[in-house]
Amino acid sequence: MNDVKVIVLAPDSFKESMTAKQACAAMERGIRRVNPEVRCIHVPMADGGEGTAQSIVDATGGTLVPLAVKGPLGSAVRAYYGISGDGKTGVLEMASASGIGLVAASERNPLLATTYGTGELIRATLDHGIDNLLIGIGGSATNDGGAGMLQALGGKLLDENGLPLGPGGGELHKLARIDLSELDPRIGKVKIRVACDVTNPLCGPEGASRVFGPQKGATPETAAILDANLRHYAEVIRRDIGRDIADVPGAGAAGGLGAGLMVFLNGRLEPGMELVARITGLEAKVKQADMVWTGEGSIDAQTRFGKTPIGVAKVAGKHQKPVVAFAGRIGEGIDDLYEQGIGAVFGILPGACDLQEALRQGEANMERAAENVMRLLMLRKGK
Amino acid sequence: MNDVKVIVLAPDSFKESMTAKQACAAMERGIRRVNPEVRCIHVPMADGGEGTAQSIVDATGGTLVPLAVKGPLGSAVRAYYGISGDGKTGVLEMASASGIGLVAASERNPLLATTYGTGELIRATLDHGIDNLLIGIGGSATNDGGAGMLQALGGKLLDENGLPLGPGGGELHKLARIDLSELDPRIGKVKIRVACDVTNPLCGPEGASRVFGPQKGATPETAAILDANLRHYAEVIRRDIGRDIADVPGAGAAGGLGAGLMVFLNGRLEPGMELVARITGLEAKVKQADMVWTGEGSIDAQTRFGKTPIGVAKVAGKHQKPVVAFAGRIGEGIDDLYEQGIGAVFGILPGACDLQEALRQGEANMERAAENVMRLLMLRKGK
Repeated sequence: MNDVKVIVLAPDSFKESMTAKQACAAMERGIRRVNPEVRCIHVPMADGGEGTAQSIVDATGGTLVPLAVKGPLGSAVRAYYGISGDGKTGVLEMASASGIGLVAASERNPLLATTYGTGELIRATLDHGIDNLLIGIGGSATNDGGAGMLQALGGKLLDENGLPLGPGGGELHKLARIDLSELDPRIGKVKIRVACDVTNPLCGPEGASRVFGPQKGATPETAAILDANLRHYAEVIRRDIGRDIADVPGAGAAGGLGAGLMVFLNGRLEPGMELVARITGLEAKVKQADMVWTGEGSIDAQTRFGKTPIGVAKVAGKHQKPVVAFAGRIGEGIDDLYEQGIGAVFGILPGACDLQEALRQGEANMERAAENVMRLLMLRKGK
Repeated sequence: MNDVKVIVLAPDSFKESMTAKQACAAMERGIRRVNPEVRCIHVPMADGGEGTAQSIVDATGGTLVPLAVKGPLGSAVRAYYGISGDGKTGVLEMASASGIGLVAASERNPLLATTYGTGELIRATLDHGIDNLLIGIGGSATNDGGAGMLQALGGKLLDENGLPLGPGGGELHKLARIDLSELDPRIGKVKIRVACDVTNPLCGPEGASRVFGPQKGATPETAAILDANLRHYAEVIRRDIGRDIADVPGAGAAGGLGAGLMVFLNGRLEPGMELVARITGLEAKVKQADMVWTGEGSIDAQTRFGKTPIGVAKVAGKHQKPVVAFAGRIGEGIDDLYEQGIGAVFGILPGACDLQEALRQGEANMERAAENVMRLLMLRKGK
């Protein structure tokens, strides 16, 4: 390790503290304080969750575009999407339009919550003439199977009187017919990739409503209604669209938005981190490096489930590059991560402080931690 | 750094969290999780301040002895002293008997506070038949020039009526005569070393009363009285003992206890960390090592003033051994430390938490941090 000349910096964002790009910059500042000759390759990362659009925009020199859309319960929210530097790839996070974070805990209601705003975001990206669209679907407030999203894009979900369904998963039992004749025709020309790390089916005990419904405000009774509604929805889809989606892994992601994206938009589900790695060209950059640094706001036992540091470690491991990870918070149960290729994990906090202070000082703390890891790497016996 | 086989572990205590010995053990546990073949040489350190007796006892396999003595304001306090494993060296901290931490802020009064309890501790160590005595004098509540200490050991400080002075620096203006005829005769047979990192003279603008008096509760007026009293004290000492102590560097340490130890007990002042290093055999152990790890509860700009990590770094530097430091808290202004031989500094906290939690989790945090530093040292390109 005495010859670290090129380091790939591939952190996720540190939520509420710094973007992945800012984390890269802070890492580089720390490194340069020790050795200005190291070449740092910035690859701001994401795993399909919050910060994905920002990271891809930052990694490709693109643009983040704000857009007011219909929120989960109907009132407008300020969402955003990204367009890559070459203008060919759009990226959006459903949570920015239809996320659980947009609804106060007491207001949560998956019977009513709609993915309509997500559909509006998709439409807006199409206006840019993109070829590829990446959709991150974590953190939804909804359980509507992507019905609202479809309606926003011109698809029709009609009841037995030929009237469009109202918003929310609670309406789906009324669904009599699906009509895609007026679906936005640009949909068919864009390759849609959905960043999705869950494999739950649409319905049943492992389905969207029963597993994720409760965290969105569903009582057991409501979850049962939502589950029955999604089952009915799947049956109409099978009849009218000719695809059996109910048991496809990932159909149950984001309250069934996974299913909607697959059947109506021909979206392909992939682990989020892999999608982002492809767009950012992570692997080609890792190949050039002597070492890879990653990180995330919190690193714990959950990190092995599709989080950025593990994804980065896998890519680095393919090319035998050592990996160091940084975290604002190191939780329990990280032993597994060492076995999965993370060489060492360092907390960046300099001392006891409350969370607000930790978040506020993220960049300074990252810089100091990066500096000292670099110092340790430069230490030579007899020097 | 790919051949770390022997590591000297030489931390100070992490105050209110773990003793230096416990810090050593936690470091070793972390190291062994990565590489059980590394040989760890434990050298629990101290700088003459709190924890010095414990560390020397731990480093030499000695005993810590509790002892009730007269506190700074007269009521009994539970102090302690240490006897080294070979029984030849005693070690005590004046603060355990006469420290500022023993007096509530509202009660502090350097006119009254006495070092009598420190004298009692000294007497108790002499009962063990020691050859050497190390006295740490930081953190005093007193400004009595060591008068109380002398009285506890049989020395007489008499007023013009031949009556003994009462306790505290406020009495010293009455001093007419010093009589050492009944001073404990064992004093002359013991080599006394005083761990002292300040060079203030006894009196004057840089003297004990004006510089340190205020933090012990002295108003400017009181400080002026105390300063005049110490000047008178120094004059009587010169006349009766034949030594001019007023301007000797360090005479003003611990409210003039530095002066008292020098003139009455023939004590020699030395930087605390160097004294402890000598007793623990630090240098000989460092010579055998590939690397040295140190640490302290807090590492900041003050660390360069005689604190353990810098002292350890100096010894390590003499033998070209790289140094890594760990801290519960990393403060501002540590750039200097890198120049003084500390290779890298790592905070041990895993995330935002309050101070109590940080202190409580010290050992687990140290273990994790040590493990990850060891992991980083073991990383090899291409592995």
